[in-house]
Amino acid sequence: MKKILNYVSPERIPSLFDLLVGYDSGADIVIPYGNIAPADMKDMVYGCVFTRKPDDLKNSAIFIGGHDVIKSEELLDSALNVFKPLPEFFRVSVAIDPDGAYTTASACIARVKKAIDTRIKGMNAAILAGTGPVGQKAAILLAKEGCNVKITSRNLEHAKLVCNSIKEKDNIEIAPIEVKDEKSLEDAVSDSEIVISTGPEGVCLLPITVWSKFRKIKVMADVNAVPPYGIEGIDVQTTKEVKGKVLIGALSVGSLKMKCHHELVKKLFEEKGVIFDLDKVYGIACKLA
Amino acid sequence: MKKILNYVSPERIPSLFDLLVGYDSGADIVIPYGNIAPADMKDMVYGCVFTRKPDDLKNSAIFIGGHDVIKSEELLDSALNVFKPLPEFFRVSVAIDPDGAYTTASACIARVKKAIDTRIKGMNAAILAGTGPVGQKAAILLAKEGCNVKITSRNLEHAKLVCNSIKEKDNIEIAPIEVKDEKSLEDAVSDSEIVISTGPEGVCLLPITVWSKFRKIKVMADVNAVPPYGIEGIDVQTTKEVKGKVLIGALSVGSLKMKCHHELVKKLFEEKGVIFDLDKVYGIACKLA
Amino acid sequence: MKKILNYVSPERIPSLFDLLVGYDSGADIVIPYGNIAPADMKDMVYGCVFTRKPDDLKNSAIFIGGHDVIKSEELLDSALNVFKPLPEFFRVSVAIDPDGAYTTASACIARVKKAIDTRIKGMNAAILAGTGPVGQKAAILLAKEGCNVKITSRNLEHAKLVCNSIKEKDNIEIAPIEVKDEKSLEDAVSDSEIVISTGPEGVCLLPITVWSKFRKIKVMADVNAVPPYGIEGIDVQTTKEVKGKVLIGALSVGSLKMKCHHELVKKLFEEKGVIFDLDKVYGIACKLA
Repeated sequence: MKKILNYVSPERIPSLFDLLVGYDSGADIVIPYGNIAPADMKDMVYGCVFTRKPDDLKNSAIFIGGHDVIKSEELLDSALNVFKPLPEFFRVSVAIDPDGAYTTASACIARVKKAIDTRIKGMNAAILAGTGPVGQKAAILLAKEGCNVKITSRNLEHAKLVCNSIKEKDNIEIAPIEVKDEKSLEDAVSDSEIVISTGPEGVCLLPITVWSKFRKIKVMADVNAVPPYGIEGIDVQTTKEVKGKVLIGALSVGSLKMKCHHELVKKLFEEKGVIFDLDKVYGIACKLA
Repeated sequence: MKKILNYVSPERIPSLFDLLVGYDSGADIVIPYGNIAPADMKDMVYGCVFTRKPDDLKNSAIFIGGHDVIKSEELLDSALNVFKPLPEFFRVSVAIDPDGAYTTASACIARVKKAIDTRIKGMNAAILAGTGPVGQKAAILLAKEGCNVKITSRNLEHAKLVCNSIKEKDNIEIAPIEVKDEKSLEDAVSDSEIVISTGPEGVCLLPITVWSKFRKIKVMADVNAVPPYGIEGIDVQTTKEVKGKVLIGALSVGSLKMKCHHELVKKLFEEKGVIFDLDKVYGIACKLA
Repeated sequence: MKKILNYVSPERIPSLFDLLVGYDSGADIVIPYGNIAPADMKDMVYGCVFTRKPDDLKNSAIFIGGHDVIKSEELLDSALNVFKPLPEFFRVSVAIDPDGAYTTASACIARVKKAIDTRIKGMNAAILAGTGPVGQKAAILLAKEGCNVKITSRNLEHAKLVCNSIKEKDNIEIAPIEVKDEKSLEDAVSDSEIVISTGPEGVCLLPITVWSKFRKIKVMADVNAVPPYGIEGIDVQTTKEVKGKVLIGALSVGSLKMKCHHELVKKLFEEKGVIFDLDKVYGIACKLA
């Protein structure tokens, strides 16, 4: 029986990246659907659970991709609502990884945690330019590990909005911080053991002259793979120690992200009815790190 | 050489259900096309018949799905027109099963026929709430078996429209009947050996207090799988006898429908140039019943 | 590792013809994308090159199809621009064959060249009704072989536009010729060793009474497979000699076109980073002829 991955995206073009990883991770067939709205998920779920015998349903799975995290999470919520009233044997496994944010954030924090090597709980963490999908998920994961997390942005209002929505959705406290000059940047990172940069490609957010001042910083990670990097002085390829700090580059995060993405798809076909949410994806990343 | 099923639908989202059944029935590859109009069928047919050698064309096939029976049948008509002027060796097999109506109606009537076990010809049959796709196809099949068939509806005008269109398209007489209260319901079923309910999910059309009054009723079938069922007292899972009548539940019809759907796709790749219309699908269902 | 062909088309419906040939030419999976604009090619290229290890990238490829040659070539240009700044190991092979024009023109001219059997360089060639995709590509190929090429049209302005655009894009001189009556037709073909007809299906462009007058004509080819053929007296199936001229029919061109199309897809997976432009496709056709 073929392992069939039903790939759904809220956007017009289903991600070729995700489709190829699907094929390379053990799916025999990946069926791509674009322009999927929450109301369409009923047909997607019914199409999965009513076509094969309950015992065979671990060979069918759903992967929710796309670029817009909010829309993708609405698709997941809709799917879960469709499953709810069905008898328990009508289940397939579901993964979600819009824009790679779940796997990237998980890989990033798994690398950070491994680099720290002692108790991460109670540490301070600053997510620079952390209002995007990866930054938000990284903040949530660190907070769940017991860190005190702040998200920085050039725009305080935007940071507040993001932190409020995390509070509302996940009941997690993240502090919104405005960074508009070197002074506010120093304030943001000076008391943090963990600094993570999740800004756009090609923008340096943290010069070496700033971060080298603060002895408290233990680990810094950057997800920007295009120079200039988000944290100056970082080596994009490897994890190494510079001036007493562990620096984790974008390709170091990226290679773990890819492994995590592959493993995620593989696991979809190992057991039916598992929902691979952020916690589960992070669990995979930590094991692989 | 890969067995390739070209799946076309008039709607935006090609049915995942149908695609999965395609893969599970022996197609190596199912290529889904949504938003297909009759004018697009030329490219679909040419794409099939001009890519492989005539002797290899039994490995290519077309399956017309969708929710809207009329639009799907227009696609079939268009395909047949494209085939017509082509030399006879330029043929692939074509199946049509919009919304599962062909396979569901075929499975339902095949079950009914088997339950009756004597001559079905000349019997009276009432299709309750029979104006939808499954009801119409069930009515046509029973009429072709020689039954006197009526379709009931709460709306007489709607029933008349449906019966007229069947008359026009298939040259088959079906009687339109209005059912608006218990009296008209009793009139509709009292003289029928066969009663079939094809109404919407969760609506009871025929209470046990009504049908148990009429000794003439021999077999009743219901395609509604969500309680309350269309015919009260029916067991959704199995065919059984209650008060001297054979009752055929929705899952009993549904399991045969699935077998019929699988067999239909399998047969597409056994011989080239076969058009699996309602008669052929019913033939498959009767063999499997 | 699966050989995956990423098929992109500027139009709504990705060509079933091309998808089937993709499967029959060695691709394990063909992923179809419709409605692709130049700006979408970044995701297509990134999706290919960042999902698999550089050494594995010969198993991923892009095929650009569609009906509109100009739009398809814009997709190719866009893809090439995306590749340019990337490190050289981030490459996949790319083919382009909108409306089959590249493979058809290549097959046609390869047949013509083989039929001539002596030096083609310096010969005169007339492409009748040559303003369409196949006619233009045929003209370019003959010009590159050193022929003096003219394109005829009923509309001189249109022919001029086409020749100017070829001059601008490929720096190749083609003469635009108006053919509006028998006199101008005779003028167009009388001094040509090579006459090719690339007009629409079912329209005869060159009666036998005209072409039989001119001893200079050595080879005539026709891509119209629906009678009446473009060149009267041609045998659609085979290449044969009539009145001292080699006549090449549409199916003779078409069979080589199909071989060329198959070989093109096969070669996509033999080496990474090869761009199969018109010259490369013509090279394949000449080898196969």
